[in-house]
Amino acid sequence: MSAQATERAVSGLAGYLAEVEDRLADVVRAHPGLVASVGADALAAGGKRLRPTLAYLSSSPDAPPPVAEGVAVELVHMASLIHDDIVDGAHLRRGRAAAWTAHGAAPAKAAGDHLFAAAFATLASNGSLERVAALADASLALARGEAMQRLQHRDSSIAVDAYLERCALKTGSLFAVACVLGGGSATFGRLLGIAFQIVDDVLDCTGETVETGKIPGTDLRDGTPTLPLLLASREDDVVRRALEGGPIEGALVRVAATDALERSRAIAVEYAERAKASLVGTVPREDLEAVADAVVHRNR
Amino acid sequence: MSAQATERAVSGLAGYLAEVEDRLADVVRAHPGLVASVGADALAAGGKRLRPTLAYLSSSPDAPPPVAEGVAVELVHMASLIHDDIVDGAHLRRGRAAAWTAHGAAPAKAAGDHLFAAAFATLASNGSLERVAALADASLALARGEAMQRLQHRDSSIAVDAYLERCALKTGSLFAVACVLGGGSATFGRLLGIAFQIVDDVLDCTGETVETGKIPGTDLRDGTPTLPLLLASREDDVVRRALEGGPIEGALVRVAATDALERSRAIAVEYAERAKASLVGTVPREDLEAVADAVVHRNR
Repeated sequence: MSAQATERAVSGLAGYLAEVEDRLADVVRAHPGLVASVGADALAAGGKRLRPTLAYLSSSPDAPPPVAEGVAVELVHMASLIHDDIVDGAHLRRGRAAAWTAHGAAPAKAAGDHLFAAAFATLASNGSLERVAALADASLALARGEAMQRLQHRDSSIAVDAYLERCALKTGSLFAVACVLGGGSATFGRLLGIAFQIVDDVLDCTGETVETGKIPGTDLRDGTPTLPLLLASREDDVVRRALEGGPIEGALVRVAATDALERSRAIAVEYAERAKASLVGTVPREDLEAVADAVVHRNR
Repeated sequence: MSAQATERAVSGLAGYLAEVEDRLADVVRAHPGLVASVGADALAAGGKRLRPTLAYLSSSPDAPPPVAEGVAVELVHMASLIHDDIVDGAHLRRGRAAAWTAHGAAPAKAAGDHLFAAAFATLASNGSLERVAALADASLALARGEAMQRLQHRDSSIAVDAYLERCALKTGSLFAVACVLGGGSATFGRLLGIAFQIVDDVLDCTGETVETGKIPGTDLRDGTPTLPLLLASREDDVVRRALEGGPIEGALVRVAATDALERSRAIAVEYAERAKASLVGTVPREDLEAVADAVVHRNR
């Protein structure tokens, strides 16, 4: 990568993300009222803005930064979080009250619908039909991933592959479309999304930090069979019974006593390496590789 | 209208709706699994398919029938009903168990999201960016209408205009975009949508029939200030208190004893007449006028 391109990628990213943030705020503020209040809260809660970052880093250094594309993908992600918290009964999101706890289920549902529709409105006014179709397809996959998660509820016997398929649908699809809308590769995004989700699921077990904004052990309490919980269940009956709905006292400590966390991290690293390998011969590349490494080595 | 055009409009409509129904089934079946099951149930529950009908009747007799457009609008409508029932805690929809009652809130939420995304996928593969933008804008309005309904919850003091604005957002926006996507007028659709919603709200009070699939009196129990309930509240304190959350026993009978139902019907007829007047000088027209009359004179 030329010095100029690196400069764009690094210092340009901050400017790009600031622009994305402004546009997100514009979208949320466009129609003052209850949906705007809920949306403003969701926006203020922050987030890594990883999907817009991927769109930006996937874009050609010579192309205009994919602002509308980053905004659209982040809006779908925000909408999905708001809706998830309603049906999961999750009271916290990123360490703050979830939208539905603060505002009620109906306004949160409406605000989620609004953000979702705004994603398509944003892309339709700045994109192409192909891009709208790609975002719609990713949203379809996301919804199927959520339904699959429900089907796998409290099932400690699911295959690791079924878990990975869920991750590909639930997380990989939006990561992939972020890269595609930026001008990059769906494969890189999909593989990185799986790696990201595995690490998220490990962090939910370790509870190293409250900075994830989730209460540690949420997956175990909810009966969501994540990779570390599946691997630990095979070695420890207390974990297995907890995952199936039994008492969870002490179960997280027992997860940590197995090698499930290390094995899960290793599988995440494998996916990140595969993601990086998929970039060979493509440009831009170095910054995406750096993101892939950061995703699997993060502690929050 | 020429005899030929009338023939297309009348016998053609049945064929068009059958094609829409097939396409809806294709969309729902595209990815077998939990979202497909929920979607199939929602589809089997039926509905008037009024929005696709409006798209068809708004289209030029010389143009190809707007199948993808009708499908897309109906998908947004179906998604919105599924989501509404979750947050409203409504157990029945069209006389059957609501999706979330039968399948649980999370799968119903995922299925609603799936249908919503499918609407944009359908239109993106068969439309133009302008049409995608129009559907997204209508979906934005729909979400704001739902939020407004929540803000007006148990408020018997809202102005009739605030109720009408809610109807325009919640119902008028999708009616309008159905007409626009067919090639017709947003104004006709918006005004007709308001008329339709008023009649729906009257039927909820009269409970003349269980064919609406709703339990009569739902709005009063839910504290939703509809036009008949607002008008009756001004004449009868029992109704007002019931709307504000007090006991509802006998309140519907008292609504009927006022002139609120007749006055509401008359306002619906006014909106339908305004809708019809907006068509003067346009083609096609006669069948749309007939639909407008049918909408306000229906008993279910």
